[in-house]
Amino acid sequence: MNSWGKIFRVSIFGESHGPAVGVMIDGLPPDLAIDEAFIAKEMARRAPGRDKFSTSRKEGDEPRIVSGVRGGVSTGAPIVCLIKNTNQRSGDYDTPLRPGHADWTGLLKYGTAFERAGGGRFSGRLTAPLVVAGAVAKLALAGMGIEVFAHIKSIADMESDMDLIQDELRRISAKDFPAAGEAEQGFKDRILAAKRDGDSVGGTIEVAAFGVQGGIGEPFFESVESTLSSLYFSVPAVKGVEFGKGFAMAGLRGSEANDPLMLAGGRIISAKNDNGGILGGISNGMPIVARVAVKPTSSIAKPQRTVDPHDGGAEGAHLTETKFTVRGRHDPCIVPRAVPVIEAVTAIGLLDLIYRK
Amino acid sequence: MNSWGKIFRVSIFGESHGPAVGVMIDGLPPDLAIDEAFIAKEMARRAPGRDKFSTSRKEGDEPRIVSGVRGGVSTGAPIVCLIKNTNQRSGDYDTPLRPGHADWTGLLKYGTAFERAGGGRFSGRLTAPLVVAGAVAKLALAGMGIEVFAHIKSIADMESDMDLIQDELRRISAKDFPAAGEAEQGFKDRILAAKRDGDSVGGTIEVAAFGVQGGIGEPFFESVESTLSSLYFSVPAVKGVEFGKGFAMAGLRGSEANDPLMLAGGRIISAKNDNGGILGGISNGMPIVARVAVKPTSSIAKPQRTVDPHDGGAEGAHLTETKFTVRGRHDPCIVPRAVPVIEAVTAIGLLDLIYRK
Amino acid sequence: MNSWGKIFRVSIFGESHGPAVGVMIDGLPPDLAIDEAFIAKEMARRAPGRDKFSTSRKEGDEPRIVSGVRGGVSTGAPIVCLIKNTNQRSGDYDTPLRPGHADWTGLLKYGTAFERAGGGRFSGRLTAPLVVAGAVAKLALAGMGIEVFAHIKSIADMESDMDLIQDELRRISAKDFPAAGEAEQGFKDRILAAKRDGDSVGGTIEVAAFGVQGGIGEPFFESVESTLSSLYFSVPAVKGVEFGKGFAMAGLRGSEANDPLMLAGGRIISAKNDNGGILGGISNGMPIVARVAVKPTSSIAKPQRTVDPHDGGAEGAHLTETKFTVRGRHDPCIVPRAVPVIEAVTAIGLLDLIYRK
Amino acid sequence: MNSWGKIFRVSIFGESHGPAVGVMIDGLPPDLAIDEAFIAKEMARRAPGRDKFSTSRKEGDEPRIVSGVRGGVSTGAPIVCLIKNTNQRSGDYDTPLRPGHADWTGLLKYGTAFERAGGGRFSGRLTAPLVVAGAVAKLALAGMGIEVFAHIKSIADMESDMDLIQDELRRISAKDFPAAGEAEQGFKDRILAAKRDGDSVGGTIEVAAFGVQGGIGEPFFESVESTLSSLYFSVPAVKGVEFGKGFAMAGLRGSEANDPLMLAGGRIISAKNDNGGILGGISNGMPIVARVAVKPTSSIAKPQRTVDPHDGGAEGAHLTETKFTVRGRHDPCIVPRAVPVIEAVTAIGLLDLIYRK
Repeated sequence: MNSWGKIFRVSIFGESHGPAVGVMIDGLPPDLAIDEAFIAKEMARRAPGRDKFSTSRKEGDEPRIVSGVRGGVSTGAPIVCLIKNTNQRSGDYDTPLRPGHADWTGLLKYGTAFERAGGGRFSGRLTAPLVVAGAVAKLALAGMGIEVFAHIKSIADMESDMDLIQDELRRISAKDFPAAGEAEQGFKDRILAAKRDGDSVGGTIEVAAFGVQGGIGEPFFESVESTLSSLYFSVPAVKGVEFGKGFAMAGLRGSEANDPLMLAGGRIISAKNDNGGILGGISNGMPIVARVAVKPTSSIAKPQRTVDPHDGGAEGAHLTETKFTVRGRHDPCIVPRAVPVIEAVTAIGLLDLIYRK
Repeated sequence: MNSWGKIFRVSIFGESHGPAVGVMIDGLPPDLAIDEAFIAKEMARRAPGRDKFSTSRKEGDEPRIVSGVRGGVSTGAPIVCLIKNTNQRSGDYDTPLRPGHADWTGLLKYGTAFERAGGGRFSGRLTAPLVVAGAVAKLALAGMGIEVFAHIKSIADMESDMDLIQDELRRISAKDFPAAGEAEQGFKDRILAAKRDGDSVGGTIEVAAFGVQGGIGEPFFESVESTLSSLYFSVPAVKGVEFGKGFAMAGLRGSEANDPLMLAGGRIISAKNDNGGILGGISNGMPIVARVAVKPTSSIAKPQRTVDPHDGGAEGAHLTETKFTVRGRHDPCIVPRAVPVIEAVTAIGLLDLIYRK
Repeated sequence: MNSWGKIFRVSIFGESHGPAVGVMIDGLPPDLAIDEAFIAKEMARRAPGRDKFSTSRKEGDEPRIVSGVRGGVSTGAPIVCLIKNTNQRSGDYDTPLRPGHADWTGLLKYGTAFERAGGGRFSGRLTAPLVVAGAVAKLALAGMGIEVFAHIKSIADMESDMDLIQDELRRISAKDFPAAGEAEQGFKDRILAAKRDGDSVGGTIEVAAFGVQGGIGEPFFESVESTLSSLYFSVPAVKGVEFGKGFAMAGLRGSEANDPLMLAGGRIISAKNDNGGILGGISNGMPIVARVAVKPTSSIAKPQRTVDPHDGGAEGAHLTETKFTVRGRHDPCIVPRAVPVIEAVTAIGLLDLIYRK
Repeated sequence: MNSWGKIFRVSIFGESHGPAVGVMIDGLPPDLAIDEAFIAKEMARRAPGRDKFSTSRKEGDEPRIVSGVRGGVSTGAPIVCLIKNTNQRSGDYDTPLRPGHADWTGLLKYGTAFERAGGGRFSGRLTAPLVVAGAVAKLALAGMGIEVFAHIKSIADMESDMDLIQDELRRISAKDFPAAGEAEQGFKDRILAAKRDGDSVGGTIEVAAFGVQGGIGEPFFESVESTLSSLYFSVPAVKGVEFGKGFAMAGLRGSEANDPLMLAGGRIISAKNDNGGILGGISNGMPIVARVAVKPTSSIAKPQRTVDPHDGGAEGAHLTETKFTVRGRHDPCIVPRAVPVIEAVTAIGLLDLIYRK
């Protein structure tokens, strides 16, 4: 199933090597202003080929809405948006299995159909429609006073320790290279070093949602963490998700990990936010904070040990071991481009949780 | 919604302070042998009060099946299992909000109904029905040659570095204190030290599923990681989830992170398993490996800064700041008891993914 | 899947020959008064054995709530209610396939497991938990000013032509034999005549919901008609469903079928209600009106031509043709007892549609 | 929600007055041959403007697949198909509420957004994407030996009594006017008579599915009848649905209504098929038979009593009573064009039920 959500429901379709990718967004009320310029701006943040830190491959990311918007506002019908693939390639995938990629598992799941289709379902290209849906969700959230911002928390062995201040994060997330000033150069150095070596690097992204009301989410199964993590782990290359202090909390004592409660203006707040705005699966009104781990780009310019299926299935005598170097130009690090995607799915998840209430 | 799953669907109900908790398990085929002794054994692994490392509070964990099983085999109707609450308390929750607990968010979500109901929906007690459902899922998985085992990976600042060998993990997960021998004493020392201090500690749990076929899961939204993480984050106190090398992968280069492919007996395998058996959201036939971070028990015997709602809602003049020490006897560390719960939800998630295929 | 509903979600479980049947009701808000006496009263309306028009078999229909209610109000947790089977039989189904029953299709679907389980999943007994859920839904609807009433519209060849006046229908639906006065004796005569002949009769039930606001339902897939019909066709023996004038509309001209619109008290109403309160799948504020066709009871005291599986599956040499007379005492007409069931599922469907909005 | 289905999931989008309508079809396996000529042929069956029995309005029904098909076979990704609206009108709906139409309920549900959007969500135009999805479902069903055919059962007061013989029905359903020979002229006469009077007529459609295996469907909630009826009642103007003998069964005795069982070639069959191939909600291997009632077209060339909202909402002082004649050219009877739509949704429903198994 290529759909997500209970009330605000997002479905993505298309393949990187077909005519278009796109998204169907269902569950939006009528009369919501749909700012297409904002959607285009969000798409631009994710687009590759902007600078030397990303692939030089160009994508024609012009979203075209074919349903659900009339005169700049939602009609209540599903919004469907197409993004043409201007850069359709074919045959690139008729190669040995690329280690780290889904070539192997695609073959296991779809058989030879996978190769014929050029592996187009697993492409990072499918994050473009997610960004469109995220932009629409952000427009709806903005009307409730909610903002979602992400930034690069770490690249390789270097970590930024910026504080999650709303105005500051708004500014940083909007940068071409969305990292705090003091970490930016170090991050870039690590990416360029990997590129020079024909290699790649990973990193982590931190996202915060400000203004989310308390009481969103359910104790079990539909906890805020369950809901958001199911989206984060749908973003290619994400291998870890944590909320608040996350894995570091496992090393603390209860007296350190518990966030003391206090009153501020007649409302309950917590004196710190190590639980990331979520207790018992439910939002408490503090900023929702999550971090995701992004593995290094699988496509590298180094020879790797692998198996060649020679156009056959995942099992049988036609399989041979080989060494293989992935052709083409690839991002040495997808973390910067994944920042708007993580923001997008956070917005999608929160809006659905709010609509469910 | 208190249900999870598409084909193998698990619904939990009951409150820690009501007459019973229980589970409804839908989607199982008829004629599956339901070994009630195995279910009881799994329940015993999670039960509190077994030793000084857990709470001395006793729970009467005898599951009673009222639907779906006849003559020891499933009928194809939903299996419903009740677990009586022998230890019903009331009034315990008419106190200041306990920091780290869901008292605050429960009040935000349910208003004063939350206090009247004794907060019984957020209780770890609800993991008992999850263990029942997990036991049933394990019985179904066993018929496919799949086994799921977990162990304590870390407590506080100490980590076990055991290798994930199936026979070894089967033995360790079955121990009263499910940790590798060389780490067991260090883990226990840390728990007892926290207990002596009236405090608590957290830790991490590692789980592995052996024998899962390749091709399970979907590229987006229903990836193996999305599916399992949504269950892990439904387990109270879990604040982080990672697969394979997880967050550590973010610090690697692509040439290190990619698992090289090779042939073994005519089948493709990977030379190492840093991706935890999942590529592009889909299983590759290697062991599925995940780790979850469990925060330290929120109930501690130390005074904490908090707010008292005095039986009123989450906002208003009746709120006062206070200092409060949680009464009663509580686990200094819930990690050991959470081990069978993490196994259970892993089994539930994998069975549903397999049935969806 | 044994569940229905998106927000107000009802799951039924149990088998007529197991220890209990029951229902899980999820999605109700906290603080709703749950009047258990009302639930018991609704159960009594459906209970068999009250008079000579229904089976003399007794069912012990005492519902016991084990979750979700505390101090007479809902807690927000799922409500689970068990109804013990006091009349457990076994072996009754080790017979030739009873024509008109699900014995044949049960065998096709579940194989020999079906016979072992005594066919208990297909029993009209499972409508008891539906009535419990319907009673809970009625309590929630009552708080919105909505009432649901049904009556017997026809038995065999005789039809009642009562007008759907709310006060009148409230009174008639509450009768032991829920039919309009002028039709009651004729209906009873037809049932007794069939009984005397060792045969059975069918009929139709008409249901109306008063006070439903306009704007409920969706144009496609989740139309009011789609939603309610999926529930009506879940009630055993229902073979037809129509809304408003239904099949009779197919014989009209547009100028007759269209309901003219007018103003009453500043609100739009229609001058007649041939569309049954629904246009384009959406409620218009007029009474929702539906009729269902109930086929005659399949169990009759006459010999019938059938096949005996002799404890084997649905295909093979063990099958033999035979003549068979169904043993036991059965309702000559289930229409009167189905009246509260049709009311119940109408209430369930409307409440879910309202909650979805 | 504009989606239907659990495994084979169909989502429709677009508005009659927007740039396009379309469909997303998820859940199809890879490697299924997608015969685009067959899809176009199915579309042509539903297209208006073919003769004097339907509207002279032309629709440009050329479906364009933008995702999920490559080299003539499915890739396993969602199939998305767009159908351009060549006939976009605007302003037509800035009129008094048309009796019988969804104008009134659209206003209740969407407020003034409904009028701005031109009521485009309620249009019969949205059945075009349903026919595309149905064509794809038929292709998948054909591979299992299943065929679905429908014909006009009645128009106004005249009924066809053709027997449901597979070869005969295949031939009749493919006719421009899909009715049995002996009834065709009578049906056409009634349609033309209504047209001459500026009026419209309704009718019934009968559909049969041949070759459906036994064991499909569930006893409750997901019965074959529940599943199909939820689709039938999503087709605009359908007000009644019955299976097998349907409403007529309510007038029978059990000894007449029960289908006697017998053996044929070692398999169980029934001697007649009054239950329409379904017992206890589950298919028995006999042809699945259903009939739907289609009300007369709401748009007629006669003045009707109605209310004018004058661009305002559904309540308030701006509402005035008026007399109104619907402008434009409309079908005097939509029954012939609804035949392929009923076939389409039957195919969609059956395929999903089969995939669920």
